[in-house]
Amino acid sequence: MTRSLGISSLVATALFLLCVCGDGNISGSTPMETNTCVKQPMQPDGIVRLSKIQVNPDYLDEYMKYAVEVGTKSLQTEPGVLTMYAVADKENPCNITILETYASQEAYKSHIASPHFQKYKQGTLHMVDSLLLDDVTPLNPNNLITNTIKK
Amino acid sequence: MTRSLGISSLVATALFLLCVCGDGNISGSTPMETNTCVKQPMQPDGIVRLSKIQVNPDYLDEYMKYAVEVGTKSLQTEPGVLTMYAVADKENPCNITILETYASQEAYKSHIASPHFQKYKQGTLHMVDSLLLDDVTPLNPNNLITNTIKK
Repeated sequence: MTRSLGISSLVATALFLLCVCGDGNISGSTPMETNTCVKQPMQPDGIVRLSKIQVNPDYLDEYMKYAVEVGTKSLQTEPGVLTMYAVADKENPCNITILETYASQEAYKSHIASPHFQKYKQGTLHMVDSLLLDDVTPLNPNNLITNTIKK
Repeated sequence: MTRSLGISSLVATALFLLCVCGDGNISGSTPMETNTCVKQPMQPDGIVRLSKIQVNPDYLDEYMKYAVEVGTKSLQTEPGVLTMYAVADKENPCNITILETYASQEAYKSHIASPHFQKYKQGTLHMVDSLLLDDVTPLNPNNLITNTIKK
């Protein structure tokens, strides 16, 4: 009986850990592993933002590498960076939009002081033709978005 | 031994179901219950879109209700609607942006044929000053976004 309990407990624990640690995409039919850190809950002074960046076409490929790197490191390592989801217009890939969500003002301050953000910021200054930071309000507070990096 | 296995299996099953069905926000420190259906995986012909809507200020409050309703019902009931995350500019709340992600062209066709989308579309036609559908490409295919409705 002890052995059977032990085995079953192991199975239960394994399933539990698989669910809790394995995947931010559990709404999907196929769970996937991620390497994103545990996130802080959204605070009343949190930020939801659409950053709109126009990149100089001469530097687009190089800019993309910086943007992917800063997004990945921020999501992987910063508990207060809840989303950093960057997309490029299909018609004009120089128009980039990033859905950025910070759990609090403190989390945002910590983000812009981080070495990976500073590397991105200083490294891409000459590549960016314009930058617009549009702070926004979700229409439905019950509509939740989760952002993770797949392993 | 049979009884202990039975109880332990129940515990394992309960934990598993809790993880799979309970929460799309497992990256957060506090799991939350959601009522979003199981989603299809993204297909090669899937769509990621930023819909940009300028609402007539006279109808803003009424438009918001329609937009929240269609977003909620689509996420709750349509396996192929992966995100429908609507935000309003803080400076000009008549400027709405919706991050819409459909698993496939088929999923998109099914969405626009649904009664809840048709109710939204027909009900808000006179409220919308302009509508721009910007199809986009995520910069990093490993950057995953999950959208759920909290219970």
